[in-house]
Amino acid sequence: MKPRIAMVQGDPAGIGPELIARLLSDEDARQQADVLLIADRDEVELGCRIAGASFPRREIDKISDFRPDTDHVQHLHFRGAAEPPFARSEATINGGRYALDTLAVALEATTTGITDAIVFGPLNKTSLKLGGMSHNDELHWFAERLGYTGPFCEFNVMDKLWTSRVTSHVALKDAPGMITQERVIEAIELIDTALRRSGIAQPRIAVCGLNPHLGDGGSFGREEIDTIGPAVEAARAKGLPAQGPFPADTIFIKARDGEFDAVVTMYHDQGQIAMKLMGFQRGVTVQGGLPVVITTPAHGTAFDIAGRGVANAGAMRQAFDMACRMASRGTSGAR
Amino acid sequence: MKPRIAMVQGDPAGIGPELIARLLSDEDARQQADVLLIADRDEVELGCRIAGASFPRREIDKISDFRPDTDHVQHLHFRGAAEPPFARSEATINGGRYALDTLAVALEATTTGITDAIVFGPLNKTSLKLGGMSHNDELHWFAERLGYTGPFCEFNVMDKLWTSRVTSHVALKDAPGMITQERVIEAIELIDTALRRSGIAQPRIAVCGLNPHLGDGGSFGREEIDTIGPAVEAARAKGLPAQGPFPADTIFIKARDGEFDAVVTMYHDQGQIAMKLMGFQRGVTVQGGLPVVITTPAHGTAFDIAGRGVANAGAMRQAFDMACRMASRGTSGAR
Repeated sequence: MKPRIAMVQGDPAGIGPELIARLLSDEDARQQADVLLIADRDEVELGCRIAGASFPRREIDKISDFRPDTDHVQHLHFRGAAEPPFARSEATINGGRYALDTLAVALEATTTGITDAIVFGPLNKTSLKLGGMSHNDELHWFAERLGYTGPFCEFNVMDKLWTSRVTSHVALKDAPGMITQERVIEAIELIDTALRRSGIAQPRIAVCGLNPHLGDGGSFGREEIDTIGPAVEAARAKGLPAQGPFPADTIFIKARDGEFDAVVTMYHDQGQIAMKLMGFQRGVTVQGGLPVVITTPAHGTAFDIAGRGVANAGAMRQAFDMACRMASRGTSGAR
Repeated sequence: MKPRIAMVQGDPAGIGPELIARLLSDEDARQQADVLLIADRDEVELGCRIAGASFPRREIDKISDFRPDTDHVQHLHFRGAAEPPFARSEATINGGRYALDTLAVALEATTTGITDAIVFGPLNKTSLKLGGMSHNDELHWFAERLGYTGPFCEFNVMDKLWTSRVTSHVALKDAPGMITQERVIEAIELIDTALRRSGIAQPRIAVCGLNPHLGDGGSFGREEIDTIGPAVEAARAKGLPAQGPFPADTIFIKARDGEFDAVVTMYHDQGQIAMKLMGFQRGVTVQGGLPVVITTPAHGTAFDIAGRGVANAGAMRQAFDMACRMASRGTSGAR
């Protein structure tokens, strides 16, 4: 059975509508999955005009009318509390509401078993906050909407390399104190599960150290000795395929060269400096750990080029492919 | 007048001797500078045999006999307290002594005005410690030998991009507390001076923030607001061409693309993750801030390939070129 993908445009002021149009105009993409598009009708048509693309679609009245249909994208005309016209290339309350309300329907469709996974176009954080999101990021919003209280973590995926992080949007001075054996093991478990769901039968997971040169045997920093090293050992004892800790300034060279499928990092920039330098803009973000598969392109709304029809849909396609792969392997997230 | 370069092989167990031989066999390199090679005679000959290279050399008895001589490398046969035979491809007390003792003569030649700058082959930290160095790195050893108590900092240079760092070999948890306005300004001044000496008349210097997304306006970390931002402003008020702070996870993309000549980083891995991923192994390390110009290739001793004649001398050549450029612009380090 094909994966059933709920899809939303993200912020209508950005490149989301045109990327979705371009993606769905690809016959191969449409054959990969049954797609439920939750979007305003005018925005869908606008996206097609901007992209110079079209796709066969059939409107349905409610998400429960969604059926396997290889010939058409099934489209629920929906704009939630947003009131057109939508502004272009700027963050607005309307844009934020539209993004959040369409995502809420996608969550409903997926948690009720109508669809298997969610793919969304780029969001704008300012719009989301104007539109009513009180969380620091959409990942926390998803978790709350899902009533999910377990561990979760954003994964960044570029080409074949995944990263996750033990700490994220916290002050650097607070990060070292938040690194516990339990959290490191949890991060390894989360990404191991995700890697397997994405189709990697035997993941190879590298774990970063925290200090320069791993603290040089305790000379400057003991977290590798006291916390991270023991956590890697404990993870291995549980059967998790983790190795490390490795020095952060050389592990990404090995990972890039294919020695590992994933790198578990200790803090935000440890992974993001490397990933962005390697071209993460063309990669995928996975909302990891949640009971629902959710993916999105790594890049942003690109207000500077939105509406011009020049946006590259490569990352959008990768996000879609990833959602299809992960969805087709069950929805529980259990290993 | 040509720059006068004091040159030593570094650890004899590594690829230093063959790299020096390959470099000096290049007529163009020899025309760039008058070279004083401080090295054991047998080691020089061995390096030539390994590299399959040769160069015209003239032995002198003491460094004060060094004279302008375009036709010959002037060679002081010297091995210090080391006792041959030297081991190959391993760290030894002999190797460390040889490296330190030849470097000491190079320092003497340069501080007494016989030569203008120093270039050395790769060192091995274990050998250096066995050989008697009590410091964490050679930069601190140089500073002590020179009786220099001012600020200094290792610079890493790859292609046209320089980096320096406000904190270096310290535990990550200690780094935030060590970042003061004074230290940030000092780091900007040091690299500005070095950039100008290397021939860049109008350096463009980017300064990194510390926290992810620069702390997102104080939400997670205030160092950008309280310390780094004001330091950049103060530096600019002094006429220093600094900009920032910039988020660490995107600034290296801009710097790589040529928007900046240098990035001042806040901690070791912030710069090293990026530089190593971009290929820093082929770059140059400059012992920055010292009253003497000293450069070396960024890579190590490469014990795994030493003696096979396959080591690439590109970084050695870059280190030599850099020393020539910086030496020819005076030795005071003053702006």
